[in-house]
Amino acid sequence: MTVENSGDFRARIRTSFGRQAAMATIGAELTRVEHGMVEIEMPFDVKLTQQHGILHAGIIAAALDSACGFAAYSVIDPSASILTIEFKVNLMSPGRGERFLFRGEITKPGTTIIVADGRAYAISDGPAKLIASMTGTMMVIRGREGITG
Amino acid sequence: MTVENSGDFRARIRTSFGRQAAMATIGAELTRVEHGMVEIEMPFDVKLTQQHGILHAGIIAAALDSACGFAAYSVIDPSASILTIEFKVNLMSPGRGERFLFRGEITKPGTTIIVADGRAYAISDGPAKLIASMTGTMMVIRGREGITG
Amino acid sequence: MTVENSGDFRARIRTSFGRQAAMATIGAELTRVEHGMVEIEMPFDVKLTQQHGILHAGIIAAALDSACGFAAYSVIDPSASILTIEFKVNLMSPGRGERFLFRGEITKPGTTIIVADGRAYAISDGPAKLIASMTGTMMVIRGREGITG
Amino acid sequence: MTVENSGDFRARIRTSFGRQAAMATIGAELTRVEHGMVEIEMPFDVKLTQQHGILHAGIIAAALDSACGFAAYSVIDPSASILTIEFKVNLMSPGRGERFLFRGEITKPGTTIIVADGRAYAISDGPAKLIASMTGTMMVIRGREGITG
Repeated sequence: MTVENSGDFRARIRTSFGRQAAMATIGAELTRVEHGMVEIEMPFDVKLTQQHGILHAGIIAAALDSACGFAAYSVIDPSASILTIEFKVNLMSPGRGERFLFRGEITKPGTTIIVADGRAYAISDGPAKLIASMTGTMMVIRGREGITG
Repeated sequence: MTVENSGDFRARIRTSFGRQAAMATIGAELTRVEHGMVEIEMPFDVKLTQQHGILHAGIIAAALDSACGFAAYSVIDPSASILTIEFKVNLMSPGRGERFLFRGEITKPGTTIIVADGRAYAISDGPAKLIASMTGTMMVIRGREGITG
Repeated sequence: MTVENSGDFRARIRTSFGRQAAMATIGAELTRVEHGMVEIEMPFDVKLTQQHGILHAGIIAAALDSACGFAAYSVIDPSASILTIEFKVNLMSPGRGERFLFRGEITKPGTTIIVADGRAYAISDGPAKLIASMTGTMMVIRGREGITG
Repeated sequence: MTVENSGDFRARIRTSFGRQAAMATIGAELTRVEHGMVEIEMPFDVKLTQQHGILHAGIIAAALDSACGFAAYSVIDPSASILTIEFKVNLMSPGRGERFLFRGEITKPGTTIIVADGRAYAISDGPAKLIASMTGTMMVIRGREGITG
């Protein structure tokens, strides 16, 4: 494949992230965009918790999926789009902390299928703590009406 | 294992669901509780979408995880709790519709590990459309301080 | 999509299964082929075990992957092929028994991506026992040199 | 948790690997054992292929599962055992090459649940090629009769 590296992938990702209303709903911000790697951060918010007061696994999945999806989006042709086919998430420590960092990285680029891996960290006073990992399979979509960005 | 079937699992699940703030945030309601099976429903809401205007995969994961987790919770001893260890989600059709139904069911009960499967459907005028599936692995937690319900 | 239903999918699957040397190596046989569903069976063999004397999880994965892949193959155009993109396997009970049955079924057909689910059972005197499940994502391959069947 | 680091984990793993008959059947050898990391290698063998002449995905899964399982086994108390609860495998490139290397590493240790990640590489003349990845969830088993090593 030809990996697109046009400087404006950052702009495209910021625009597309801005259209992910779910990210605003969970208070997530795009904090780093590199070629093949994206980071999203959000503060702890009690409205995102499950019954034990920790971050709901699905919210972790949402932020990891966006980080992985945009990591994939950073390496494709500007006219194409990314759709998540599937992902797996392992929850490794309780989602408890002041802030959370979600990093998505391309493990395997491809013309049709891109595999990305993500890691989620809880951040408080001490060192960042790994709370979850994701492996996601993304499909590159071209020329499908209504699917852009 | 001894599968607990005390009639009040419905009450316990309703209480626990009520403490999942994330479910209120995404507008999800508990609409059916059976022994080993739980359904959650929510209306489409633009605030839950990704960049193409469809339901964000992570929101689907959140509702499926709760449905699967409570399905597991319905079959355990009232003093124990459930934590999700990991899940996998396949996105099969775009999350587009008026309402969404998420069903979680126990596939394999167990004293320590419970496997649950979930299905997500989009509901509009016509027949319900399968949009996603989940397989989740849940751990039964006993006697861990601060973890109840 | 147009689901091909030409009667000869059974013949095509038998031929393709016959070329899966790995299936012969593990002693697996194709025992049922329907449109969208395939069953594979094999006897217990100590050469397929892990250190506790039960069937190795990877052998279970191999048979489930073939069952799911051929279930996908049964619904595609005869000139296309199937490649597994990814799968997840849950091991639910020890792989102990006289024989094992592996069933793969299409959950979601598609022109490019097919999702299949599989179940593995141990069979002895009593009722069949569910030992594992798989969800697999398969890609339909067309016109790629050297990839047929 | 207390991570056991007694020097004899290498001996324990070599013994346990030797009892995995499935590894001998697929021609796999244990080539490296570190604390939290294990490598397994095997030559290409036509008897392990699928219908396109490449390594069967289930064989890749088998070697990755053993690598991940023994990586977990290297960090637990000598009297405990490891059982795989579930794993997910992504197939990223065709399993074609002279030899294959499978590396399993601990991502998250734990007293009950250990998460391990694995990578599979095809090796020929040129650089090693990533062909697959695994994330596996392992359970630490203590005091279960008949389950040792």
